[in-house]
Amino acid sequence: MSTDKDKQASNQMWGGRFASGPDAIMEEINASIDFDRKLYAQDIAGSLAHAAMLAKTGIISSDDCDKITHGLNTILSEIEEGRFTFSRQLEDIHMNIESRLAELIGPTAGRLHTARSRNDQVALDFRLWVKQELIRTDAALTALIAAFLDKAEIHAETVMPGFTHLQTAQPVTFGHHCMAYVEMFGRDRSRVRDCIERLNECPLGAAALAGTGYAIDRDQTAKALGFREPTRNSIDTVSDRDFALEFLSLASICATHMSRLAEEIVIWSTPQFGFVRLSDAFSTGSSIMPQKKNPDAAELVRAKTGRINGSLIGLLTVMKGLPLAYSKDMQEDKEQVFDAASSLELSIAAMTGMVRDMEIREDNMRKAAGAGYSTATDLADWLVREVGLPFREAHHVTGRAVALAESRSADLGDLSLADLQAINPAITDAVFSVLTVDASVRSRKSFGGTAPDGVRTQIAYWRQKL
Amino acid sequence: MSTDKDKQASNQMWGGRFASGPDAIMEEINASIDFDRKLYAQDIAGSLAHAAMLAKTGIISSDDCDKITHGLNTILSEIEEGRFTFSRQLEDIHMNIESRLAELIGPTAGRLHTARSRNDQVALDFRLWVKQELIRTDAALTALIAAFLDKAEIHAETVMPGFTHLQTAQPVTFGHHCMAYVEMFGRDRSRVRDCIERLNECPLGAAALAGTGYAIDRDQTAKALGFREPTRNSIDTVSDRDFALEFLSLASICATHMSRLAEEIVIWSTPQFGFVRLSDAFSTGSSIMPQKKNPDAAELVRAKTGRINGSLIGLLTVMKGLPLAYSKDMQEDKEQVFDAASSLELSIAAMTGMVRDMEIREDNMRKAAGAGYSTATDLADWLVREVGLPFREAHHVTGRAVALAESRSADLGDLSLADLQAINPAITDAVFSVLTVDASVRSRKSFGGTAPDGVRTQIAYWRQKL
Amino acid sequence: MSTDKDKQASNQMWGGRFASGPDAIMEEINASIDFDRKLYAQDIAGSLAHAAMLAKTGIISSDDCDKITHGLNTILSEIEEGRFTFSRQLEDIHMNIESRLAELIGPTAGRLHTARSRNDQVALDFRLWVKQELIRTDAALTALIAAFLDKAEIHAETVMPGFTHLQTAQPVTFGHHCMAYVEMFGRDRSRVRDCIERLNECPLGAAALAGTGYAIDRDQTAKALGFREPTRNSIDTVSDRDFALEFLSLASICATHMSRLAEEIVIWSTPQFGFVRLSDAFSTGSSIMPQKKNPDAAELVRAKTGRINGSLIGLLTVMKGLPLAYSKDMQEDKEQVFDAASSLELSIAAMTGMVRDMEIREDNMRKAAGAGYSTATDLADWLVREVGLPFREAHHVTGRAVALAESRSADLGDLSLADLQAINPAITDAVFSVLTVDASVRSRKSFGGTAPDGVRTQIAYWRQKL
Amino acid sequence: MSTDKDKQASNQMWGGRFASGPDAIMEEINASIDFDRKLYAQDIAGSLAHAAMLAKTGIISSDDCDKITHGLNTILSEIEEGRFTFSRQLEDIHMNIESRLAELIGPTAGRLHTARSRNDQVALDFRLWVKQELIRTDAALTALIAAFLDKAEIHAETVMPGFTHLQTAQPVTFGHHCMAYVEMFGRDRSRVRDCIERLNECPLGAAALAGTGYAIDRDQTAKALGFREPTRNSIDTVSDRDFALEFLSLASICATHMSRLAEEIVIWSTPQFGFVRLSDAFSTGSSIMPQKKNPDAAELVRAKTGRINGSLIGLLTVMKGLPLAYSKDMQEDKEQVFDAASSLELSIAAMTGMVRDMEIREDNMRKAAGAGYSTATDLADWLVREVGLPFREAHHVTGRAVALAESRSADLGDLSLADLQAINPAITDAVFSVLTVDASVRSRKSFGGTAPDGVRTQIAYWRQKL
Repeated sequence: MSTDKDKQASNQMWGGRFASGPDAIMEEINASIDFDRKLYAQDIAGSLAHAAMLAKTGIISSDDCDKITHGLNTILSEIEEGRFTFSRQLEDIHMNIESRLAELIGPTAGRLHTARSRNDQVALDFRLWVKQELIRTDAALTALIAAFLDKAEIHAETVMPGFTHLQTAQPVTFGHHCMAYVEMFGRDRSRVRDCIERLNECPLGAAALAGTGYAIDRDQTAKALGFREPTRNSIDTVSDRDFALEFLSLASICATHMSRLAEEIVIWSTPQFGFVRLSDAFSTGSSIMPQKKNPDAAELVRAKTGRINGSLIGLLTVMKGLPLAYSKDMQEDKEQVFDAASSLELSIAAMTGMVRDMEIREDNMRKAAGAGYSTATDLADWLVREVGLPFREAHHVTGRAVALAESRSADLGDLSLADLQAINPAITDAVFSVLTVDASVRSRKSFGGTAPDGVRTQIAYWRQKL
Repeated sequence: MSTDKDKQASNQMWGGRFASGPDAIMEEINASIDFDRKLYAQDIAGSLAHAAMLAKTGIISSDDCDKITHGLNTILSEIEEGRFTFSRQLEDIHMNIESRLAELIGPTAGRLHTARSRNDQVALDFRLWVKQELIRTDAALTALIAAFLDKAEIHAETVMPGFTHLQTAQPVTFGHHCMAYVEMFGRDRSRVRDCIERLNECPLGAAALAGTGYAIDRDQTAKALGFREPTRNSIDTVSDRDFALEFLSLASICATHMSRLAEEIVIWSTPQFGFVRLSDAFSTGSSIMPQKKNPDAAELVRAKTGRINGSLIGLLTVMKGLPLAYSKDMQEDKEQVFDAASSLELSIAAMTGMVRDMEIREDNMRKAAGAGYSTATDLADWLVREVGLPFREAHHVTGRAVALAESRSADLGDLSLADLQAINPAITDAVFSVLTVDASVRSRKSFGGTAPDGVRTQIAYWRQKL
Repeated sequence: MSTDKDKQASNQMWGGRFASGPDAIMEEINASIDFDRKLYAQDIAGSLAHAAMLAKTGIISSDDCDKITHGLNTILSEIEEGRFTFSRQLEDIHMNIESRLAELIGPTAGRLHTARSRNDQVALDFRLWVKQELIRTDAALTALIAAFLDKAEIHAETVMPGFTHLQTAQPVTFGHHCMAYVEMFGRDRSRVRDCIERLNECPLGAAALAGTGYAIDRDQTAKALGFREPTRNSIDTVSDRDFALEFLSLASICATHMSRLAEEIVIWSTPQFGFVRLSDAFSTGSSIMPQKKNPDAAELVRAKTGRINGSLIGLLTVMKGLPLAYSKDMQEDKEQVFDAASSLELSIAAMTGMVRDMEIREDNMRKAAGAGYSTATDLADWLVREVGLPFREAHHVTGRAVALAESRSADLGDLSLADLQAINPAITDAVFSVLTVDASVRSRKSFGGTAPDGVRTQIAYWRQKL
Repeated sequence: MSTDKDKQASNQMWGGRFASGPDAIMEEINASIDFDRKLYAQDIAGSLAHAAMLAKTGIISSDDCDKITHGLNTILSEIEEGRFTFSRQLEDIHMNIESRLAELIGPTAGRLHTARSRNDQVALDFRLWVKQELIRTDAALTALIAAFLDKAEIHAETVMPGFTHLQTAQPVTFGHHCMAYVEMFGRDRSRVRDCIERLNECPLGAAALAGTGYAIDRDQTAKALGFREPTRNSIDTVSDRDFALEFLSLASICATHMSRLAEEIVIWSTPQFGFVRLSDAFSTGSSIMPQKKNPDAAELVRAKTGRINGSLIGLLTVMKGLPLAYSKDMQEDKEQVFDAASSLELSIAAMTGMVRDMEIREDNMRKAAGAGYSTATDLADWLVREVGLPFREAHHVTGRAVALAESRSADLGDLSLADLQAINPAITDAVFSVLTVDASVRSRKSFGGTAPDGVRTQIAYWRQKL
């Protein structure tokens, strides 16, 4: 009977849901097993490499090493088969595995922790996870680039409006537009590779923060775990989370690219634009309005940018002003990275799917490209090049031609030669060849320009880099 | 045999873990049931209120209303007792409940959705959840304030150094220092209350975005759900997430306050400062160094600031540039808020516990307060007040006295009257009364100053506001 | 000859542009006069109030007070007339004014600093500035709301498509859409007012951090400077920047609202949508494409969101983990706030101008509203209401009607009664009254709905709040 | 007389300071000359290269090229000598220079704009500026690394406490601690170099967004301006701001490193720690408390992190969801980068100065290192290694020894052999050699550990990389 009252009092004392007082609060804030269990494979791989090194250097016996190895492999199976019981009392993945190992092989388990500390252990596990995630991201970006290359190839000559300020500026090809994204995601991939290269050093052996007096062989563990070399400073090793910050930075930039693509897809899917039709797989409909296709996947990808940026700023804020070497604050590194990684991976996959599947409505693109006097620049350029007008005068003449066309609700190409000659008598029949969107697009032959041949050159360049 | 190869191909096509292609990706990115199930109670409460209103206004029969009510209450029990099966195919909490209701009561279930849309439904659920969380936060902050008031009362006369630039500036009392935090958390609580007041409008009835043609009674549902009144514009209602942004803003400011307290606890717990000793409940030890107490909980609270700031920037980024009314991007609102709310609640509870439990080491505080010539300002003020020296001259005299004391590795109070008169002959015996830290503290009687009586006045002021 | 080499060496030693070594670096990083000169009026107002209080309480003579007052007023004139020479050596606005006062009135100047410190002085100046900026923001938001009310009044019956996912959902009126923004900016204004109310406490008298032993009258200075009351804790007073953080928070939310409006303006201005035509004042043209109007102002307003969010996260990061009371880090508070305030003020003014000036292209809006079967929901609702079909069945019937219309590239209203009755024989002639966009809009009479009368009710409600 | 009233009315209409209505607002929000004038050198360099290429390819005559070149060089002199009048009406740096060129050389000026647009021009200018800033950052970081190497060399054997959780953990050397920062700033420098490599492509020739029909030679301009090659896609070229985002990302990570160092300096400078004494050049004193040294520069560097993170999030937010190619939003890219660059440069220089100048108080460091049973781990390790105890048992024995020492307020090294043998009889005299901080430090010989020889190895490694 008194329990409820006590509970209420306790509630008042601690606030909110923490009826049971300090122990519950500490366990809740301190335990990381709910998220760091994700590192089980890395933790076991690190322990296997460490044990092998300890045996090779004679720090533990090979018999102990065999026991440890066997025990760890057993635990790996238990976890992968869902037979492992994670315990919050044991706080984190390291203690969960360590404790189970002791159950399995007895006191020998303790020898595994010779010349190692939780500080270098967690640094290893997390770095290894980030490295593997970066490798997955590399592959995912390659798939997205490939999807764009295929689309670009098909549409190397498909004319669409090139926009500035979301206003029609000049005609371009859809293939060329696709290749702009190839460049963006290509840079993202190159950032991924730089990050892998930079983090490719093995933390094991830094111990608590000062290194160790045991005659360990750090090169051996580094090599066994696929790192280029061991890290060079033990204090830095346990206090460094640059690899996580750099991953989050590149993820934010990549997500920003995807948000731009997503925005375009949302706009292109409106009935007003009608440039693309999304596949059913990446949109949702309405039971009542069958013609409606909501670009849900694109919107969600656009929104994920916020989440990833949030993770970046989150970890930057955590790390701000932390004295060396290890502070418990750094436990807040993992969830930010796991969440961002999952959002990034999912977004890239969704974008790859949308790009592969989306139907290009060439007719609407072409119609829009031709509207809005998009070839006015071509006319001006022709006047400079062929008639020899100074640039400023050429602009003036073009402005008058556009105004005339507009007054007739017509396009530039619809004006007669007489109309044009009335504005400037030096204009000849040849001018009409530059007033079509196709001619305009074909003419932009400068390196990196939208002319179909140029687009194909770039496709070939990138195909080699897949 | 070919499966592996196919899987690999598929992996390459979609990137990463999405072996199974578009459907798996879309489900993964689109389904929200994994997190929005948290809204089940709000969803059911909203539906109950809506059904009652539909019956009262004659839009549905009271018989149908009874069936719906019974069905919803059944579902509520099923969920709370863990007997409900959530389905990802049904995407979100609304469809999960709707579908189960249809199973339970048949086609009548469909009548519940008269004059309602998922857009106003989710707006209601989420707003209700945020409101309830704000009420919990209010209570939690009150508990934290109470903990500080108790500590301040005990230590209204406990002298400690007041710091600027983390350098000793002037003596203050620990009670006064506690009351600075009471002011901060008091402001936080006042922001919480303003936010509740502002969001206290009921979204139900906005329907998809345009309102509805049914003669519904929005005042009734608003009242039934504890809102002040219904919202005034249906488009705004379904596109607004201000309540979430404002919650995240105030959470960030509150977390910033806690990070400052956490930083002080970390510094005060060092052997060098030794101002406080944390309870075992909120620190971790070392099996090998029994004297060591790591202030884990304080460090984690400090780190949560990053996470909460990240959620704020995350949702601000999501909402940036979204056209009205509803876009799917907005589905990314909930996890940011849920995560920040949980971090905030936990941090406040942990801080309340740390403050309640921590042992103040008065001796160390007093010793530190007396060092560093912290009463130099008092000497200068005395010279202005009692001797009538101009401010600048008083500073000059004080500087010489400090220099003399420093040259002897002594404190100001250790100088003899002769010493002081050698610097300025007008100095009398009375000066020594201002050179002690206790005298210094007692003298700061201006409103809001550190004099113990002033501190007690403020404690009384705040006790009334608990 | 050797100078270049030395310079190079020095460059190498300090890096970059700091050829001249430590002094130049320290002056550059330490001096705040380049930005805090903006606080001159607040600084002088505070000093005038402080001097008057010191005289009234007898701490200084009224003669000294007169001299100080005269001197400060002289300085005010000098600054406002551009005759004041700011000096970087004097670091900040306080020292610049203090030093000039000493030049003007001699040693009496020193008496002004009795019972005051730079810490409470800067807290006052900045708080006063933020308060005045909030008052300006209130007025600016009121002007923006007024612009929307005028537009809403004119267009209370102008039909446009209501969008979800940027896809046509249901018809609404442009007036109703305007009123959604009125609600948003109304909430912004209410946040502004709460912030003013909360910060309305006077810091003067907190002194360095502990209060003062002088018998000052803090109520007098508070009242003289327009504050409700003095602050209650001296440590909090000099360490608190909540008012700045809260200002930045509300500015970010308000900027987010403007970014949504800006996005809509950009999309509405495309030739594809053609819903609005911006005035020349808020767009830029092209000398060559006279029909082109780039919505520059809207794009810039959209972009300012980033800047304001950046300032918010900037100051939150600065304040994270700062021990009490004052740390020099806090000098980084002003530029963030000044920059955000200027961006916010400018954005609101630009938006007010754009809204006032923009031409609504009603024909295009109406045409778009009617497309895309936007009244399908109305048909379904009619079937439920008039025919008594269960909701699910009504949806099914509607779906078939839409499919039929789509197969004929026709609208729902273009179907014949026979067509409809072939789908469901209970349909009568009366149905056609709900299939027009005007009927649809008129029917949404629920409180807060889009029916023109409802819109006018809300306009009247807000007119009273101007 | 009516002016004031009008002004008030106008104020009310536009809000705030925009008395003069739309034109003033548009100029204020649109003009960039106040900040982009910083790009004058890059703009002129780009134009010189473009003109030379146009002449070489025969697109303009060499005579015109000479005139243009002469005119641009004149303008360069005018700007550098402060004789150039910047005009806000001319909006940006490009138009200011273009317009002045026309004044100087007449209509020929117009030919410079053949085959170029403001879009690729601004992309070039900004990219060039960022590249040069990165080169400056590289040099500045090298200077900072050099400062640490010098300090590390002197203090390779200076013992200090290694901290975890800001609690003493194990003894390390100050030289080793310095080398941790060398690793951090070394990674920063490597990120700088990767960024230079990635952005090293020339935008010129992308024109408005589609490339150009003129037979330009993009390789020539790329080479002339020091780029590796021209960019590959014209749309991407004008819409890409990755180089700015990547710069801001690496700046944020670098600033985070500096904030950690700054925090340590602030803590180390307290009387309680007393590990370092800052030079007068990088601290401020108090006229009244001569012993006081406020670590202002360190605090300001710590605070700059917020500002730089704010710039990063600011630009990420600006770029989120922007459709290709150019939107005016992108004008908000420069101030973020300029401000962050200036903060970063200044912070690195200040840190370099502080590190070079700071006095290490070896006695205090050593004393602190010896306290807190920091060699307890060494004792445990000795027991494992020499006595052959299992790890767990060794920990147990060590714990008892520490408890005994603590009960006597003594250090581990103060216990007698008899004391230790009473706990475990296998302990011998040899144990005392591991209980001193010097022995502890010397023993950590693992690669990257704190042993002085290891530290010197790393110093040598980094000296080669200066």
